[in-house]
Amino acid sequence: MSKMMDEIREQPGVIRKLVVEERQNTKRIAEELKSHGAQFASIAARGTSDNAATYGKYLFGIVTGMPVVLAAPSLFTLYDAKPNLAGSFVVGISQSGQAADVIEYLEGAKRQGALTLSITNEPTSELADVCDFTILCHAGPEKSVAATKTYTSTLAALTLLCASVSGREDLVDRLLVTADAIEEVIDACEEQIAEKVERYRYMSECIVLARGINRATAFEAALKMAETCYVSADPYSAADFQHGPIAVVSDGLPCFLYAPTGPAIGSMRDMAKLLHAKGAELISFSNDKEMLDIAKTPIRIPVEMDDLLSPMVYIVAGQIFAQYLALTKGIDPDNPRGLSKVTITR
Amino acid sequence: MSKMMDEIREQPGVIRKLVVEERQNTKRIAEELKSHGAQFASIAARGTSDNAATYGKYLFGIVTGMPVVLAAPSLFTLYDAKPNLAGSFVVGISQSGQAADVIEYLEGAKRQGALTLSITNEPTSELADVCDFTILCHAGPEKSVAATKTYTSTLAALTLLCASVSGREDLVDRLLVTADAIEEVIDACEEQIAEKVERYRYMSECIVLARGINRATAFEAALKMAETCYVSADPYSAADFQHGPIAVVSDGLPCFLYAPTGPAIGSMRDMAKLLHAKGAELISFSNDKEMLDIAKTPIRIPVEMDDLLSPMVYIVAGQIFAQYLALTKGIDPDNPRGLSKVTITR
Repeated sequence: MSKMMDEIREQPGVIRKLVVEERQNTKRIAEELKSHGAQFASIAARGTSDNAATYGKYLFGIVTGMPVVLAAPSLFTLYDAKPNLAGSFVVGISQSGQAADVIEYLEGAKRQGALTLSITNEPTSELADVCDFTILCHAGPEKSVAATKTYTSTLAALTLLCASVSGREDLVDRLLVTADAIEEVIDACEEQIAEKVERYRYMSECIVLARGINRATAFEAALKMAETCYVSADPYSAADFQHGPIAVVSDGLPCFLYAPTGPAIGSMRDMAKLLHAKGAELISFSNDKEMLDIAKTPIRIPVEMDDLLSPMVYIVAGQIFAQYLALTKGIDPDNPRGLSKVTITR
Repeated sequence: MSKMMDEIREQPGVIRKLVVEERQNTKRIAEELKSHGAQFASIAARGTSDNAATYGKYLFGIVTGMPVVLAAPSLFTLYDAKPNLAGSFVVGISQSGQAADVIEYLEGAKRQGALTLSITNEPTSELADVCDFTILCHAGPEKSVAATKTYTSTLAALTLLCASVSGREDLVDRLLVTADAIEEVIDACEEQIAEKVERYRYMSECIVLARGINRATAFEAALKMAETCYVSADPYSAADFQHGPIAVVSDGLPCFLYAPTGPAIGSMRDMAKLLHAKGAELISFSNDKEMLDIAKTPIRIPVEMDDLLSPMVYIVAGQIFAQYLALTKGIDPDNPRGLSKVTITR
């Protein structure tokens, strides 16, 4: 069908492999981190990796209380500024390990005495070489330009690290449960999405919303639709959306809502009601009856997920949606116009 | 014409007043901050204030090297997490001082021993009450729902604070130069924008790009067009845009580029050439000949600005564009549908 769909299907296996291969490594990194005594972390990344960084910001904030700076690489690359990262923990994420601005940020951080970590799919890359530690994604070659398995495996890498840092061993077991849940979701959702996606053949713009830790899911799902379907998809946290952008909503505007039950569900139900009253067309990805009932296009996610790990499962439904929508629009999702697998910015 | 246009015109006077009224106060805060020894700052804000926070992140990063966390208020409000903010410097921005989630974040930070500061237009607000220090915007009542003068005065407040913290006294003088520059830009740009805006009467979506410290300008200019013109305006840093979203660009897609000469101009020129080659329609706000020549709609900004302070000047052109576009579309920019002046999220 597409390399993208093949790679979507590989995700449970990749996560299982990562847990086995990187368990000891993340324990070692966590010990080093403890003796280092970092008060905050900083993550540098671009594109899909930056959405993974957002997940890391929430995950570490919720589980360990560690504040996370999402780095602005241009501070180093354009301004030659010297962000004071001494004593902090600095993470660079890049599936190819070739992102020039991310590498430059990590080099700068290391010079200042930060503890540095790369998360990458390429063990021999420059980024891995520059950093004190590396967690590998173990995703195998990703042939589709649209990143799928490198995204979820980066989320899994962050979760494994968080488990080691916080001593929350249960998160490791729950990662394995998550791999099973992704399998279930692929089985249960592929057919319903393939059928329902036709309606959006001529959609040119849409809004994508989530709240809390699934903010990462909204941004990554929107990026997948932009890359593979050329849809102008605008992602927001549901709270930020209320502070102004909601004015754009008019009759029929498609709004995608990623809303697993959990701490954010009340906020998402309120948003769904508000959008419904404005005449928006709702596409819900949820296991919550109310969220599904209110939607024109409900995509039922048939698993009860821990909120913290739900982004790994919910994005898979978003990836499948983007893949089928691209095919329905007559676009090859593996080779979006104007994009190549490795993008380098400075 | 509109309250929004009146308030746009008040901006130079507001900045001058703020410099006079808050100069001693920011010196006092800077001294306290030094004895406090914070290693990083965290800023909590929503909507327009969050765009001001982005400016603060770059400004403090470039001038002082202090890393800035853009806070996720939901960590406190949804997850009841305890981000470790002890010893840090935590800033809450809210023009009304009523933003419930921002207040909750600042209360949490204070309990943990952070030094807390509010930047607000309301001296008697709950946010001001909760924080150790307050910098007032001195913007007077803002009657248009679309924030203009409270945005630039918040940027000025952050600059004044940065001048005191870094001992860069020249920034204070340059703030006064900036007030003059805003006046010049209003005089020079209002007529050209009023004439050129007709072409975009039926524009329903667009891309808004900048790089470096003007990332804040791209996001705020897009928010103004979304709020007052109901245009689905997608803002990106030009670097992030290259990592995927650029695939949406097709013939005629309007792309707004905010590009003062400075460290980011090379990157913006490259982006303009790339977009032009893809057939996009470029609207440039710039003082750079190349950026203006390549655009279908050049908006010449007739001042040579210091890059650090350029966001205050360039957003004014964006505000004027949004105001005239709203009028051309037959929309009252002061009363966008579905929005009220104060939005409260939790």
